[in-house]
Amino acid sequence: MADVSTGPLDGLRVIDLTRVLSGPFCTMILGDLGAEVIKIEPPKGDPVRAQGTMTQGHSGYFAGFNRNKRSVVLDLYSEDGRAVLRRLLADADILVENFRPGTLDKMGFGEAALSQLNPRLIVGSINGYGSTGPYVDRPAFDFIAQAMSGFMGVNGDPNGPPMRAAAPVSDLVAGIYAALGIVAAVVGRERSGKGQTVEVAMVNGLISLLAYLSSEYFATDRVPERTGNDHPLVYPYGLFTCSDGQIAVANSHDQILRRFLDTLDLGWVMTDPRYDSNEKRMKAREELREMINARMAGQSQDHWLEILNSAGVPCGVVQDLDQVFNDPQVAAQRMVIDVPFQDGPTVKVPGFPIKLGATPCRIHRPVPRLGGETRAVLSEFGLSESDITSLLHRKIISD
Amino acid sequence: MADVSTGPLDGLRVIDLTRVLSGPFCTMILGDLGAEVIKIEPPKGDPVRAQGTMTQGHSGYFAGFNRNKRSVVLDLYSEDGRAVLRRLLADADILVENFRPGTLDKMGFGEAALSQLNPRLIVGSINGYGSTGPYVDRPAFDFIAQAMSGFMGVNGDPNGPPMRAAAPVSDLVAGIYAALGIVAAVVGRERSGKGQTVEVAMVNGLISLLAYLSSEYFATDRVPERTGNDHPLVYPYGLFTCSDGQIAVANSHDQILRRFLDTLDLGWVMTDPRYDSNEKRMKAREELREMINARMAGQSQDHWLEILNSAGVPCGVVQDLDQVFNDPQVAAQRMVIDVPFQDGPTVKVPGFPIKLGATPCRIHRPVPRLGGETRAVLSEFGLSESDITSLLHRKIISD
Repeated sequence: MADVSTGPLDGLRVIDLTRVLSGPFCTMILGDLGAEVIKIEPPKGDPVRAQGTMTQGHSGYFAGFNRNKRSVVLDLYSEDGRAVLRRLLADADILVENFRPGTLDKMGFGEAALSQLNPRLIVGSINGYGSTGPYVDRPAFDFIAQAMSGFMGVNGDPNGPPMRAAAPVSDLVAGIYAALGIVAAVVGRERSGKGQTVEVAMVNGLISLLAYLSSEYFATDRVPERTGNDHPLVYPYGLFTCSDGQIAVANSHDQILRRFLDTLDLGWVMTDPRYDSNEKRMKAREELREMINARMAGQSQDHWLEILNSAGVPCGVVQDLDQVFNDPQVAAQRMVIDVPFQDGPTVKVPGFPIKLGATPCRIHRPVPRLGGETRAVLSEFGLSESDITSLLHRKIISD
Repeated sequence: MADVSTGPLDGLRVIDLTRVLSGPFCTMILGDLGAEVIKIEPPKGDPVRAQGTMTQGHSGYFAGFNRNKRSVVLDLYSEDGRAVLRRLLADADILVENFRPGTLDKMGFGEAALSQLNPRLIVGSINGYGSTGPYVDRPAFDFIAQAMSGFMGVNGDPNGPPMRAAAPVSDLVAGIYAALGIVAAVVGRERSGKGQTVEVAMVNGLISLLAYLSSEYFATDRVPERTGNDHPLVYPYGLFTCSDGQIAVANSHDQILRRFLDTLDLGWVMTDPRYDSNEKRMKAREELREMINARMAGQSQDHWLEILNSAGVPCGVVQDLDQVFNDPQVAAQRMVIDVPFQDGPTVKVPGFPIKLGATPCRIHRPVPRLGGETRAVLSEFGLSESDITSLLHRKIISD
C-alpha cells in the first residue's frame, strides 16, 4: 500500500472533525477519491471505534467508514489544542464537521474566523435540520430524519405502520451530498480563488429523494398512500411466488408487461376486456396476482429470473446479505474489498460505488489506529519535534 | 431569470443523453450547481414528460428532475443526427448517459471514439448492475436494484415481508454518486488535462449504504434480521404513542436514554435490576413499551416533542407529505421552491439540498420545453442557419 494517492482529488488536504456516520462517510468518499483525510479525534476516539462486533479487537463498523484516513488525536477542549487545529486549517483545503449548528463557532472557528485564517478553505457541515429555522437546536438522528422528512411515512404496507429503512439513509445521503458540494466548491475555487461554506441537512437530503411522491403531492394536494411493495400506479408489479421463493418483477409500462405476460403464457390478459387497461388491472389486483402466482409456482426463482431477464423484464430476488455478498455480479464489480487496520487485522468492507476509468478509487491508507499519525501529520504541518514532545507531555495530543 | 449561472460549475458544458430518473437527477444536480446542461431528447421527448398528474398540460414529475436544463431534440437513429452529437461532444466537458451498458458503443460513441473526438471529455454512465459481470445485460429498475442489493431484504417487520422504500432510492443515490464522480473527474482533469469515464451502478450504490448491516454480516457471517422500526441493538427506541398519535424516539445510547426516561419520570428504570442493562431492556421490550406508552398517552405529540427535544432526546413525528411541505423548518430551509416551465406554468418542486454559502444553487434555467433551445444551442456550437434549417427540414432536429 503506497502512501501516495493518484485519485482525482490527489493533493487536497481534508481536516476531518466529524464523528459517527454522516461526516465520516463524506470524508471517506473524499479519501477514496484520492484526498488526504486527516481525522482529528478526541483522546477517546470516534465512538464508532467501540461499536459493532469486534475482529481481533477492531470494529468492522468503524472500518466501513474510515478507510483512507490518517488519525490525529487532538484535545480541542484546550486552547493549545485549538491552536494546533488553527495551524492545520491554515494549510488545508477542506474542513468537514458534523457538530450541531453553532458548535464550531463556539469553539472559535466560526465562518469569519476561518475565512480570515485561510480564505481558500472550503468548510463542509452536515447536520440534521440545517443551520437556520425553528428546529436548529434540535438533536438529530437518522431515524428521526427519516420520520420528519416524509421518507418513512410513504414506506410500508397500506394497512401497516409507516416503516423506516434499516440502512441509515439520511446520514449517508447527506454524506454523499456534502462530498459533492465540497468537490463542486473545489471546482469553483479554481476560478474565484476563494473557499466557501457547504451545508447539507439530513432531512433536506431525504426530501430531495421523494421524486414522484412529492410531485404528485404538489400537483394534487393529496398525500400519497402507502402501497407496500406494489407500485402505486401500475399492476401487475411487485413480488410473485415461485416454487422456492418470491421474485420481484417491475413491469413499469405496457411494453414490459406484455413481455412478462407472454413469457408466462398469459399474453391474452392484455386484450381480455376484463384486464385490457391498467385501470382495470389495478382494480383486479388480487385476481391477477393469483393467476400469475399459479403460473410461477411451477418453476424455481432461477428459472424465472433467467427467462424473464432474457425477455427484457426487470426482475430479481430479494437477496439477503449472504446472497448479496456471494453474488457473482457483486464479486465482478468488486463491491466487497479487503482493508487493513493500521497495526491490526484485515477485514472486509463494501467496495467503491464510483468507478473511475483512469484513476480508480483504491485503498491508499489503512483504517487508522487512534492517533496513529499524530506525530507524522503535525511534523508535516511544520511543528517542531520539541513542540510535538511538549504537546504530548501535556496530553493535548497523543499517539 | 438570468441565463447566466454563477454556480461553482459555471462554464462546464454537459451533454445529457439520459432519460427517466437516475440520469436526469444527476444532470439536474450538475445544473443546480451552475453547469450548462443540454438535454438531448428523441423526437417524442423524455417519457417522463408524459407521466404523473399534469398542471396545465405539464408534468410536475418531469419538472422535479429537469429544471436548469436546455432541451435539444435530436434523432440519434440517423447518421446526420449522430454527426450533430459529435459536434456537440467535441466542444463539451461532460457527457452523461444511462443507457444499458454497450448501447453507447453501438451508437458509435464508445470510449475510444469519444476519447479521440475530445480527450478532455468526462463520460458519466449510470446503469443497473455495472458494465462488467454476469448480469451486465439484465434490464434494471429501481425496485429490482432495491431487491438485489440487500437494501430491501433488511427493511420491514420481523414477521412481515421485506419492504421496498417507496422513494426510488437506487435511482437517485446512483444519480448523486455519478454527479460526485463527474465533478471529482473535473478536479482531476485540472491536473491531468484528460477526461475519463465515471460509472455508477444502482445496485452498487445501495450496497454502499448498508452500513452496520454489512459490517455485522462481515464480522459475524450472520444475516441481520428485520427489526421493523425498532433498533436491532438498543431498546427503548422506535415509535411510541401519545394522546394524538405516535412519535419516533431515537435513544441511541445510555446518556440519551437516561434523559428520555427522566423526562417521563421513569428514571428509576435505569437502575432497576430488571432493566439495568441494554440486554435486559431488549428482552423486556414489550413491558417497557407498555410502560412508556402509558406515560406518553397523557399528553400530545407537540408536548412531548417540545420537552424531549429540549432535553436533548432526538425525536420527531412521522410526517406525511402534507406536514412535511407545511413544516416551518422545511420552509426556512427553502426546501420547496417555484420553478417555471419554459412557455408554461410555474410549479412547486423540492429545493436544493446542497447549501453553498458564496455561490448558492439557484434556478438559472426553466424546465425546458421539448426542443425549446434546439436552434439556440446548435447555433452556439457553430452550426450555420442553413445547416439548422436543413436538419429541421429533414426532421433530424426539431424545435
